[in-house]
Amino acid sequence: MSTSLLSQIQNPSDLRQLSAEQLPILAQELRDFVINIVATKEGHLGASLGVIELTIALHYVFDTPNDLLIWDVGHQAYPHKILTGRKDIFHTNRQLNGISGFPKRSESEYDTFGVGHSSTSISAILGMAIASKLKGELSKQHIAVIGDASIASGMAFEGLNHAGVANTNMLVILNDNAIGIDPSVGALKEYLTKAKVGVKPRKNNIIEALNFNYFGPIDGHDLSSLLRTLEQLKSTDGPKLLHIITTKGKGLKQAEENQVKYHAPGKFDASTGDLIPKDSTNLPPKFQDVFGYTLLELARENEKIIGITPAMPTGSSLKYMMQEMPDRALDVGIAEQHAVTLAAGMATQGMIPFCTIYSTFLQRAYDQVIHDVALQDLPVVLCVDRAGLVGADGATHHGVFDIAYLNCIPSMVVTAPADEIELRNLLYTASLGLDHPIAIRYPRGRGHISDWRQPFNKMTIGEGTTKRKGKEVAIISTGAIATAVSQAINQSKQNVSHYHFPFIKPLDHKLLNIIFSEYHTIITVEDGVVTGGFGNNILSYGNENNFKTRVINLGVPDQFIHHGTIEELHEICGISTAGITSTILKHV
Amino acid sequence: MSTSLLSQIQNPSDLRQLSAEQLPILAQELRDFVINIVATKEGHLGASLGVIELTIALHYVFDTPNDLLIWDVGHQAYPHKILTGRKDIFHTNRQLNGISGFPKRSESEYDTFGVGHSSTSISAILGMAIASKLKGELSKQHIAVIGDASIASGMAFEGLNHAGVANTNMLVILNDNAIGIDPSVGALKEYLTKAKVGVKPRKNNIIEALNFNYFGPIDGHDLSSLLRTLEQLKSTDGPKLLHIITTKGKGLKQAEENQVKYHAPGKFDASTGDLIPKDSTNLPPKFQDVFGYTLLELARENEKIIGITPAMPTGSSLKYMMQEMPDRALDVGIAEQHAVTLAAGMATQGMIPFCTIYSTFLQRAYDQVIHDVALQDLPVVLCVDRAGLVGADGATHHGVFDIAYLNCIPSMVVTAPADEIELRNLLYTASLGLDHPIAIRYPRGRGHISDWRQPFNKMTIGEGTTKRKGKEVAIISTGAIATAVSQAINQSKQNVSHYHFPFIKPLDHKLLNIIFSEYHTIITVEDGVVTGGFGNNILSYGNENNFKTRVINLGVPDQFIHHGTIEELHEICGISTAGITSTILKHV
Repeated sequence: MSTSLLSQIQNPSDLRQLSAEQLPILAQELRDFVINIVATKEGHLGASLGVIELTIALHYVFDTPNDLLIWDVGHQAYPHKILTGRKDIFHTNRQLNGISGFPKRSESEYDTFGVGHSSTSISAILGMAIASKLKGELSKQHIAVIGDASIASGMAFEGLNHAGVANTNMLVILNDNAIGIDPSVGALKEYLTKAKVGVKPRKNNIIEALNFNYFGPIDGHDLSSLLRTLEQLKSTDGPKLLHIITTKGKGLKQAEENQVKYHAPGKFDASTGDLIPKDSTNLPPKFQDVFGYTLLELARENEKIIGITPAMPTGSSLKYMMQEMPDRALDVGIAEQHAVTLAAGMATQGMIPFCTIYSTFLQRAYDQVIHDVALQDLPVVLCVDRAGLVGADGATHHGVFDIAYLNCIPSMVVTAPADEIELRNLLYTASLGLDHPIAIRYPRGRGHISDWRQPFNKMTIGEGTTKRKGKEVAIISTGAIATAVSQAINQSKQNVSHYHFPFIKPLDHKLLNIIFSEYHTIITVEDGVVTGGFGNNILSYGNENNFKTRVINLGVPDQFIHHGTIEELHEICGISTAGITSTILKHV
Repeated sequence: MSTSLLSQIQNPSDLRQLSAEQLPILAQELRDFVINIVATKEGHLGASLGVIELTIALHYVFDTPNDLLIWDVGHQAYPHKILTGRKDIFHTNRQLNGISGFPKRSESEYDTFGVGHSSTSISAILGMAIASKLKGELSKQHIAVIGDASIASGMAFEGLNHAGVANTNMLVILNDNAIGIDPSVGALKEYLTKAKVGVKPRKNNIIEALNFNYFGPIDGHDLSSLLRTLEQLKSTDGPKLLHIITTKGKGLKQAEENQVKYHAPGKFDASTGDLIPKDSTNLPPKFQDVFGYTLLELARENEKIIGITPAMPTGSSLKYMMQEMPDRALDVGIAEQHAVTLAAGMATQGMIPFCTIYSTFLQRAYDQVIHDVALQDLPVVLCVDRAGLVGADGATHHGVFDIAYLNCIPSMVVTAPADEIELRNLLYTASLGLDHPIAIRYPRGRGHISDWRQPFNKMTIGEGTTKRKGKEVAIISTGAIATAVSQAINQSKQNVSHYHFPFIKPLDHKLLNIIFSEYHTIITVEDGVVTGGFGNNILSYGNENNFKTRVINLGVPDQFIHHGTIEELHEICGISTAGITSTILKHV
């Protein structure tokens, strides 16, 4: 490896010493490097393989980090990280205290803007370009690379709409591979699909209609074409867009052929590309699959049920319903705002829409939840996936704010099942038609009950449960963290009580009155921020009702939590089994 | 009036009894009716005058309420309300217990979807259209009327992008008048401006590129043209858009000539159109003007300062800076998401962006505040205008959630000045360049200090103040509600203390330790929701630190508050002077 080109490159200034003829060789080395590390360390694969040539070309042609470059979403930025000083620590990707799986300002001056959520790059680069213009830095270049799935999101359109009249020196590179995590959808995607390398869409060119100078489409794997075009764009003033066509997973046959699977494939054989199968025979199911299969089961019996996902058919497992009932299970693209208000519109007509959105992405639709759903008290079912700490994806993706930001909305029912069976029963209860909107939050990954396909039980809204009756200290938990609480009680060998509240809102006042009366200390446990969360609300209820019981709120503290395994992050927050055990022992 | 056409119309079925020839006469009567009532009762004027003919034509041609009609934003819906059963109570518009200034589902079956925030109509109508299709109601029509300023918002684009591939029976009517509340901006607006009545944009037709059937542009004040076109559209399948060109304020000369002023002009002479001037000589200034003039003053001295507004130059008073420094004060259109991330991009380059957004609209940019600003700890200044209960605009517009949804975000500094001078000093302090993002929330309307242009004082982040020292009971307030608290203490004639916390986050722990130690009861007062708010956080601090002081949290209860005067709504929430007085007397 010491004689390889890649081994000579610590940062882009080294890259710029190479001749243009050497770049295809470097591309092959870089591709192999990404494949070799992701094969064993896991992470995002396909997107990065698709931009190997683009990454090299950008850092070769532009004067990074002086010129400013943003990678939208950021899971395409592995080659960028490797070429900008992080090659030797790239094997720590997504690990606790290792580098982040996404560009991050605190990690490198080449990471000009932290990304993770989609479609922010155009707004951010325009902000930078306007700043440069005001500072008189007129030769500075500003480049945002964005995929075709991400550019179809409303926020990207807002950025383009402003950029088209802002007259700054900015370049948007549309990395068009017809896929996000799942295949792209929508009218804009259909429109883009008509463009071919060398064939510029002359009629109805949306980009030109928005005052952008449009270049391309060119082959995004053709280095000489990329270099030539980027050089030309360097000296083109004003807002401009370069349309490149690439293949996600480029260079690894299986990744090209099965792009959804190889988006983040887990471990695989670097030489053959074959996935290394995990034995999941005896594992309990993922919460996502419980959601996906249960919704399909319910939808078969109830024609009013509709499923909606903003671009996460596979991740949310809505795909099962989409496969069987394509008319009633819809992927609306990266459009959380639209997804929620679409659901509200459906609910006005008597349908029961189940809108599944990751907790962290529901932040994008916060206004729609308040203004279109809750204010009208429409029985939309928000399935808040990946709630809590999500692990390796890190700070941009943790779903830790949802309890706080939903709790304060009138009319909302907010719930968090303890396990797969309760998730199933909450979905069933919601499917019967409620008088209010309901949010059902559940975590990423597996539960602990293999035998989850039990007959449905309707749950009573607002009713908590007693899981274990003890003395002196009561633990009240909500959501799947109940499992850690049960384990902690066992480990502590103390005779404490455990109450599980599937309903965060409304709280079970009757049960709370008993708990506040009977114990000297209450410990609340939740997988979300303490401030404004479940435990804070219980404290507030006790205060309003003049109880003097001591209340300890466990949860995510008031700081951003970065990446690591979910277990490591729970440990940091004091909500791992060990952390809860230690709190119990302190207060008995 | 008894022989007028309008007097014969209680609902659209009466309207449909008229001949097409009578409709222009009805239009004149309806226009006069709107003018006469808004002249004395106040409310939104220009938008409704612009859609008189459209409203008549829609209810005449379509079978409402069976056919479904949504008015985007909704302040254009006065003629709709008058023609759909609410003529006789229209004079109660925007008053406590009167009808809402916006369409509202609970008010009428003709109000198919509650609106208030912009750009929701396309998503909602598509949801309805998909529901109708699934229910086999194939002849049902679905119509959304949306302005050119609103269609440029990201959410509307998401709706169009989905609708273009959904193949439902839906009609979007683009009401193009080149203005929202302030003149429209952006590349799409420039594009639309090229379209003229009868001249269809053939090249680069964005709408057709998104798979919509495009009709128009036609004159939106020409009833016969409207009737003919709408009849034709009734039998045209699939997604379609009708582009109509109208004049905001149509039919009232001054309103046509001064469209910004006559958006919601206050009282005016119905016959001449002349505004009835309010004597504001001795009134203290609006918080908005304190913001606008102070920012300009600071920007003159500091080149790093940039102002950003999403489509509210006049309402926010950013217009003062825009007039003097158009390069540094930007109206980005109805694009809150973009506005916040644009500001974040600028902050990375050392600028100090002041992004002014109404509290209720900041909900649209919640994810951007978390993901792009706070997570990166960028010193963006969010000027959260119209925080608290806003009065006549009602439930869609109250800014009551911001404390709760900002409090839970790490790194944020959250502030609320007591008065104009403190607002000024907070703006000054933020302009010096902080290490964190800061939100400064202030209410709609006037403060109480006329002599507000005092020399700047730098404030210490996190420091509370003692406004009045008494015994037994302490009141802690944040924001401009401090004035009501002071009055209440006077009225109660009790010797209680009053602490004002301009900093909601971080809280002044040192001062809180003293307060918790010295009083048997603490009453917190805020103009925002109690759940997860300022008072809840003080309670949580006390609990964490083992204080046993009784804490009473006053604020907006856990229900949606509708319209009325701000004073009436404060009374309902128990945070009027009288309400606070009564709480004091109860606890002394």
